Amino acid sequence: MIILETRGLKYRYPDGTVAIQDLNIEIKKGKKVAFVGQNGSGKSTLFLLLNGTLKPAEGEVLFHGTPFKYDSKSLREIRKSIGIVFQNSDDQIFAPTVYQDVAFGPANLGYSKERVDTCVQQALEQVGLSRLKDKPPHHLSGGQKKRVAIAGIMAMEPEVIILDEPLSNLDPVGADEIMDLLNEFNQFGSTIIISTHDVDLAYRWSDYVFLLSNSKIIGQGTPAEVFKDSDLLKKTGLRQPTTLEIYHEIERRGLASGGNSPKTIPELVNTLKPIDLIWVDVPPGVKEGDSLNLGIMYGQYATQSPYEAVNATVLHIHPDGRAIVELKRKGIKAGGVLIYDTDNYSLPEVKQILKEGEIIFVGAMGKKSKILAEQDGIRLDISSGVIDKTILAALCGKRCLILTAGGMVDHALKRIKEYVETSGIEFTIGVVNRKEDHQWIGETGDSPETLKV
Amino acid sequence: MIILETRGLKYRYPDGTVAIQDLNIEIKKGKKVAFVGQNGSGKSTLFLLLNGTLKPAEGEVLFHGTPFKYDSKSLREIRKSIGIVFQNSDDQIFAPTVYQDVAFGPANLGYSKERVDTCVQQALEQVGLSRLKDKPPHHLSGGQKKRVAIAGIMAMEPEVIILDEPLSNLDPVGADEIMDLLNEFNQFGSTIIISTHDVDLAYRWSDYVFLLSNSKIIGQGTPAEVFKDSDLLKKTGLRQPTTLEIYHEIERRGLASGGNSPKTIPELVNTLKPIDLIWVDVPPGVKEGDSLNLGIMYGQYATQSPYEAVNATVLHIHPDGRAIVELKRKGIKAGGVLIYDTDNYSLPEVKQILKEGEIIFVGAMGKKSKILAEQDGIRLDISSGVIDKTILAALCGKRCLILTAGGMVDHALKRIKEYVETSGIEFTIGVVNRKEDHQWIGETGDSPETLKV
Repeated sequence: MIILETRGLKYRYPDGTVAIQDLNIEIKKGKKVAFVGQNGSGKSTLFLLLNGTLKPAEGEVLFHGTPFKYDSKSLREIRKSIGIVFQNSDDQIFAPTVYQDVAFGPANLGYSKERVDTCVQQALEQVGLSRLKDKPPHHLSGGQKKRVAIAGIMAMEPEVIILDEPLSNLDPVGADEIMDLLNEFNQFGSTIIISTHDVDLAYRWSDYVFLLSNSKIIGQGTPAEVFKDSDLLKKTGLRQPTTLEIYHEIERRGLASGGNSPKTIPELVNTLKPIDLIWVDVPPGVKEGDSLNLGIMYGQYATQSPYEAVNATVLHIHPDGRAIVELKRKGIKAGGVLIYDTDNYSLPEVKQILKEGEIIFVGAMGKKSKILAEQDGIRLDISSGVIDKTILAALCGKRCLILTAGGMVDHALKRIKEYVETSGIEFTIGVVNRKEDHQWIGETGDSPETLKV
Repeated sequence: MIILETRGLKYRYPDGTVAIQDLNIEIKKGKKVAFVGQNGSGKSTLFLLLNGTLKPAEGEVLFHGTPFKYDSKSLREIRKSIGIVFQNSDDQIFAPTVYQDVAFGPANLGYSKERVDTCVQQALEQVGLSRLKDKPPHHLSGGQKKRVAIAGIMAMEPEVIILDEPLSNLDPVGADEIMDLLNEFNQFGSTIIISTHDVDLAYRWSDYVFLLSNSKIIGQGTPAEVFKDSDLLKKTGLRQPTTLEIYHEIERRGLASGGNSPKTIPELVNTLKPIDLIWVDVPPGVKEGDSLNLGIMYGQYATQSPYEAVNATVLHIHPDGRAIVELKRKGIKAGGVLIYDTDNYSLPEVKQILKEGEIIFVGAMGKKSKILAEQDGIRLDISSGVIDKTILAALCGKRCLILTAGGMVDHALKRIKEYVETSGIEFTIGVVNRKEDHQWIGETGDSPETLKV
């Protein structure tokens, strides 16, 4: 279903410069969409057109199939439904306290005092800033200010959230928190539109990508489609995403096993063909069928290695004295991932799971779960890039716990299951302490299985 | 030689908050140094202490072994020698034209009108903005503004240039241009100090890294030393550089051949062990010593592959019917890299090289060379990340030309030679049209050799 659409959209700045030319795009409801382009390519102008802040010179913008009207009543409706978060939070935040800032939008929409309060409390909880509600926003960190700006938009409960360069100037932790939030809103049904010049982010995060260059759309499609075309990217002054560029180099050397477009590090390393046969120099007298101890002969195949150091079978002796040896992979102890739904949180229960489940790797996703862990002294091994890092830990045989809530439980479960399905590498996944009114999205293993690599 | 040093440095904000505690660091002359930490870790405050803008509460800063004095004459000397470029260019740029803005510093140092003019012209040429010298700076792009701010500092010919988050808010092309410039200044002897929360940048670019967390240095060393400690990085809210994280995963699977810390994509893929032996299912009747045509049997080993599709030798037949086959790598046509010194540029000569050298991949480094190429219609395949992309192209058998000038010629030659030496993969490198007064830093091949993979 198309939620937002433009037809023949044109915009000129007051000095006559064309900022947007003849733009026709369709954005589907519930998707994560990225507009990717260099600074000055027209992204910010387009975003102001998409929520009615700017009026096009020609063409139209349609929301649920109905063209925008630009009278003040229609505009108020549009801005209630389509929220925009500016690149520079200081342009958006102006009230003396965090609470008042977040309340500005809903109050302006004419909501009752009680409804404003409910919206603000809920938005502040979602972005994890309830404790700072009486602080002046200008003393907050960059990441916190960005969350205030997002809460101000979320408090109006928009269907579409547009964010102009949401990660600019944020450090890695601040950036991951914002992306966690956006994924959470998306899980609850919001359509999220961002602009970025970070190709790695757009490739990894989005469902659909528009490439913007010199005020025009010059490419669109899934991230895998758009970012495989390196000539197109060159034209826009961008580059290929790092994991994709590395994958192409691996493929060119004949070392990749599949025709995938890996987005994450676990996916990337899984495209590598395993090595099972190697040439080794053997002393005279070794015969086909003999067993060799490679741990002594070759330090590199010793304890750290995923291969057995002993009992490597000699399959073939070459006339030049070298032998082909088959490497045996070590049986890797099963890892697994448990997802704990913190909407129904109890500290004793988490402690019991940590102990009895022999959990040695704990992550939290979403502000609420991170704050719970912090308050109750649950040591977190990771609080950013949680899903990918948990998969890597599980692959290394660790038993992992993810603390998260609401729609993020499904999101994490789905991502990890997708990984297991497409990679063919299996480990246990399960959800514990699920709130009863939540749906399961699929089945998971009941008991730990041996990891198959 | 130590150029800049702090001893027991402490700083408190007026409200009493400690911003820097007991900091002891030494920075060597001519190095590229990165201070890495989250926002709020104290990087910006430290930088203001390092050029005398802030006065420490305790301890001292030493330049060439002499402690800073804070009278206005001493401060003027310090700021002439140690230039600082702020994160937000708008904080630094204020004059009505680019020329006047760049002239502000040298004029303030009491230089004669002629000397100011020489310094400004030279600085503008270095940053590639001579053509915009009469424009108002506030109409420039983010990358151009950053270059104006850098030119304003370079015009004072400082020994040390400090840049606070030099790439923040720049798109990939703008960012690469700034890093090209900084490398160029460094080649001419300047000590470059940057702050960043981009671990990939710090890992790839710097000679030495300081990790800053909560106003303290919690780690320092070469990028390979500092970034291998993932626990330390976690403590600072940072992550491992992407290429290093991927390398560790490759290593864990036993697929890496060396004990290196790869910084670039070519270095990373070169750590992968090649696959020469594979299991294939063969029809009955195939004997050891037979030749197989894998192109027919296995699509994946067909024309695109680096392996020969025909004449794969069967080395061993297993009782279960599978066979071990040795893959032959295709002879790869030699690629090579020519570096053209544009300090002595002639268009007919470049055209002749492009034609007679059968060059099919052209890159330019440094603003001057890019502008020359643009003016004369020389099609550039790349203008950012030039060295790495040229190496990749040469590895794929392409003959490449890099247009660059001055110290960047040595820089490119050195980087490519280092790659060839450490990787063991050889291709031709040469410099043409070198200005006579420049030194060769090493020998290069005279004629194309066959690429050894």
